Amino acid sequence: MRRLSTRIVLFQQHAANALGLIHTDIKTADILHETGPITAGELSRITGLTTGTVTALVDRLEAAGYVRRERDTADRRRVIIVPVDTRQSDIQAVYAPLAAAVQHMGAQYNEEELALLQDFVRRISGVYEDEMQRLTARE
Amino acid sequence: MRRLSTRIVLFQQHAANALGLIHTDIKTADILHETGPITAGELSRITGLTTGTVTALVDRLEAAGYVRRERDTADRRRVIIVPVDTRQSDIQAVYAPLAAAVQHMGAQYNEEELALLQDFVRRISGVYEDEMQRLTARE
Repeated sequence: MRRLSTRIVLFQQHAANALGLIHTDIKTADILHETGPITAGELSRITGLTTGTVTALVDRLEAAGYVRRERDTADRRRVIIVPVDTRQSDIQAVYAPLAAAVQHMGAQYNEEELALLQDFVRRISGVYEDEMQRLTARE
Repeated sequence: MRRLSTRIVLFQQHAANALGLIHTDIKTADILHETGPITAGELSRITGLTTGTVTALVDRLEAAGYVRRERDTADRRRVIIVPVDTRQSDIQAVYAPLAAAVQHMGAQYNEEELALLQDFVRRISGVYEDEMQRLTARE
């Protein structure tokens, strides 16, 4: 898992390079796609990045057209970060060959094995999530 | 896998915070532990970070005591980056609860299932490695 974790982080960095983004930016764009519109404070909490780092990151993502800042209609003082879906296709293009390779690998397993692997990936994601929360609580 | 990949990247960022390092620094320290002493150019190629980013990163790691710069004894013009093992225990301390949680999860599978899962993790690491190389070739 340690080797896999290193490979995943390195892949993300190279994928970001290919899109002209900095290492963490591409994953942040992906997170926003998962969460939908959120505030900079919420994004800071989720990513573990400082608010200063998040501000610079959102500036870059906004300049590159991946997100836009909007005033919250319910509370005009709140600024929310909204993912821009049209740029998601550029991200998809970089990830597509990876997705295809993973799918090709998956096709070599039978149904029972696939169920076991899907359950494993879901559970190991939960372990990483829990451990991340534990680290956040310590901060 | 996309969800897992996001969780792994986020965990790394929080782990780096806990060690007072920037997101990519901790993984770079881990990579150096895997590769042993290498040059800044080699580190730049492996991580996909620009040489400027790598220089600043090695400065931070050196200041924090995770690496030191040394002259290559064979070619005095070459500077190599050497991981400092004494600081590895601090990194281990942050990763230990994660390792324990993964091990605890592993204990719930029988031998046949574990063999399948280990093979899967090894192969999926290879997929990420291959796709990273593909992205590097495009740059």
